[in-house]
Amino acid sequence: MKPLNELTATELTAAVRAGRATCEDITRACLNRIAEREKDVQAWQYLDPEQAIAEARARDRSDRRGALIGVPFSVKDIIDTSDMPTEYGSPIYAGHRPRADASCVALSRKAGGVLLGKSVTTEFANFHPSKTRNPLDLTRTPGGSSSGSAAAVADRMVALSIGSQTSGSTVRPASFCGVFGYRPTYGDLRCVGIKEAAGSLDTLGLIARSIDDIALYRDVLLDVKPVAVDKNGAPPRIGFCRTHLWSLLEPSTQALFEDAADRLAHLGAKVSEVALPSEFEGIPDAHRLISGFEFSRNFAWEIEHHWEKISTTLRNGRIRDGLECSFERYLEARDLAERCRQAIGPVIAPFDVVLTACATGEAPADLNTTGNAKLALIWTTVHVPAISVPVFKGPAGMPIGAYVVGKRNRDREHFAFAHWIHRALT
Amino acid sequence: MKPLNELTATELTAAVRAGRATCEDITRACLNRIAEREKDVQAWQYLDPEQAIAEARARDRSDRRGALIGVPFSVKDIIDTSDMPTEYGSPIYAGHRPRADASCVALSRKAGGVLLGKSVTTEFANFHPSKTRNPLDLTRTPGGSSSGSAAAVADRMVALSIGSQTSGSTVRPASFCGVFGYRPTYGDLRCVGIKEAAGSLDTLGLIARSIDDIALYRDVLLDVKPVAVDKNGAPPRIGFCRTHLWSLLEPSTQALFEDAADRLAHLGAKVSEVALPSEFEGIPDAHRLISGFEFSRNFAWEIEHHWEKISTTLRNGRIRDGLECSFERYLEARDLAERCRQAIGPVIAPFDVVLTACATGEAPADLNTTGNAKLALIWTTVHVPAISVPVFKGPAGMPIGAYVVGKRNRDREHFAFAHWIHRALT
Repeated sequence: MKPLNELTATELTAAVRAGRATCEDITRACLNRIAEREKDVQAWQYLDPEQAIAEARARDRSDRRGALIGVPFSVKDIIDTSDMPTEYGSPIYAGHRPRADASCVALSRKAGGVLLGKSVTTEFANFHPSKTRNPLDLTRTPGGSSSGSAAAVADRMVALSIGSQTSGSTVRPASFCGVFGYRPTYGDLRCVGIKEAAGSLDTLGLIARSIDDIALYRDVLLDVKPVAVDKNGAPPRIGFCRTHLWSLLEPSTQALFEDAADRLAHLGAKVSEVALPSEFEGIPDAHRLISGFEFSRNFAWEIEHHWEKISTTLRNGRIRDGLECSFERYLEARDLAERCRQAIGPVIAPFDVVLTACATGEAPADLNTTGNAKLALIWTTVHVPAISVPVFKGPAGMPIGAYVVGKRNRDREHFAFAHWIHRALT
Repeated sequence: MKPLNELTATELTAAVRAGRATCEDITRACLNRIAEREKDVQAWQYLDPEQAIAEARARDRSDRRGALIGVPFSVKDIIDTSDMPTEYGSPIYAGHRPRADASCVALSRKAGGVLLGKSVTTEFANFHPSKTRNPLDLTRTPGGSSSGSAAAVADRMVALSIGSQTSGSTVRPASFCGVFGYRPTYGDLRCVGIKEAAGSLDTLGLIARSIDDIALYRDVLLDVKPVAVDKNGAPPRIGFCRTHLWSLLEPSTQALFEDAADRLAHLGAKVSEVALPSEFEGIPDAHRLISGFEFSRNFAWEIEHHWEKISTTLRNGRIRDGLECSFERYLEARDLAERCRQAIGPVIAPFDVVLTACATGEAPADLNTTGNAKLALIWTTVHVPAISVPVFKGPAGMPIGAYVVGKRNRDREHFAFAHWIHRALT
């Protein structure tokens, strides 16, 4: 049997239920891994081993055996916790202690999950890099803004982590770190208790090491009875979509995708190319205005009272974009996003999934960037579900995810298609 | 000149700019009114006169002359304040002190507004009645859930108040108390720092004693330069819509509306009847499922840890509705809401506004109810802007609002039409 910290959430809950492991055993295995690796990876904003062990023991003592029993998880530090500091990646909130757990934390704990601590986030889930490093190569970025979440799951410190996504903040780090990153259909998973960046785009993001775990965790956060992923489905109909931004990809990454499209077709999938309507070319600019306008109003208190504690990256980026944007331009951008949300349905309809990229290649060997979000934000803006599936290795041996995009409100079926593609390509 | 506490925000800012009043003068006038009336009305959850005067003096000392300079305002106590308790209408949050001001509070203060205190809300902005009474008749409900906001503005305790609306929580109390209540286009005004009830329905709600003040306050909360309401527009094209719930209205209220439709036509408006597509009859049930499903997940922490402190009204109402609703039924309800959002555009297109009702009649002479929300929630669900305009008196001499509903993203033009109707009917 693998060390407990290397098991998936699905495997861990089975082990606890069968009496093969206690919640405390599992938590200690994860804490040992963290003790060994944290100096290098720096995935944690807050961690109190004693507190985590106490929570695990409470699970062991309880008769409740929820769907996440004994599973160690972390949450990005823009997510409120009633018993741990929550600093939103900003010195403005040093030592901040929220009154309540965020909805997603409360639901995870109710299902038996053990919250180990808070994962590093970039400043207010934006682009200013954090201290976290890619666990597969410490000279590389783990991506952002859910930097610590992806690094901790990839490094076997926890089985699950909750991040968030406004542009590509869950799926890009998942691609860079070689784990599954899931952005749900917009509006499904509640964001109460999470520091909002841009409400019309924000969702939670789930990071795990298996598609089964993603499906399980989604059901826990919906507070419904979990349903296993269907693994007997027919090969999916795949629309391979380069988007108008394909030239951002490194040539070697382009080749990986083209080869994958061929392999999937050989394995029985119906693969054809699909193009997005030309209006989608306006999404990156519309996204910049929407996220900027909303962010710069959302953070009115911080801007008014703590301007000097905001990074220049954020001041000169999203905040300036937002303060310079008129309400009329914001409305035009929102209109374009809304039209594309209507248009994406017929584009995907002939397929089961769209295959595309959410990162330009391997994680950049540069700790001063979190990578390029543009590829992912096209799909974020149109509110569809999507999963970065770890299937490729780049020229340096670093992982790259295939971005598998689905139909709005069809997340459960989407997991089955993503599973098929993962199995086919690995 | 009227006493300062009776002036509108637009009048007050002019008085301060002209040197005819200081911010402190105005705040003291409002505090005197509160001291005189609060024992009866009970509109305030938190009020510290010294703190309010200190804030007013700071405005007087400052060179900044924002769009809301010197205007006393209150916010519903589901809205976070960095320097006042915020208890969300629940003993679970007794003494809770948030770290930051909600976005809307920060923007109001940035523009020169003086926050007097926190207005009474029902428990978590739901249906369990609060202590507040209707200032026009203390035996009657002020409506809910923005009970204190409507009562305080109606009673000349403040010029402006921010409430919120998930069903009819701003416009129904406005109708019952005889003031303007505005629910904006969904998504325009940021809800950061406000205790979410059901995110896919929630908006801020603004309460004031003039349409000019509503327009001014909206621009402040959008953080844009204020634009005055156009008062020279042609008579609007009005669609008079009884909805399928018209039988809920008291006969005397039905008569008021029918008479108003005639008077508006005589004054030059083009008035014709408009019916909603039959699918809209499903909205009340869909709204119950959507709000219940989202609420019961949003409040996972409170439900898990403080069940005994939640009212039976809420436990047996929205929470039970939500916990009993499957995800599939929730999605069906959300689909119906989305279809109606698409359908409402063509329905309103031939008109400038829709004239309808947001309350069944005068405020009930019963402090154990906040009134019926069903009429308002049809329009809330489809995300259009709407204003309760105080134009009618019922058989007991209590006010009733005309509900003037507009087109999504056309709020500014909508103010001009609402102004025309208000002037025509009063």
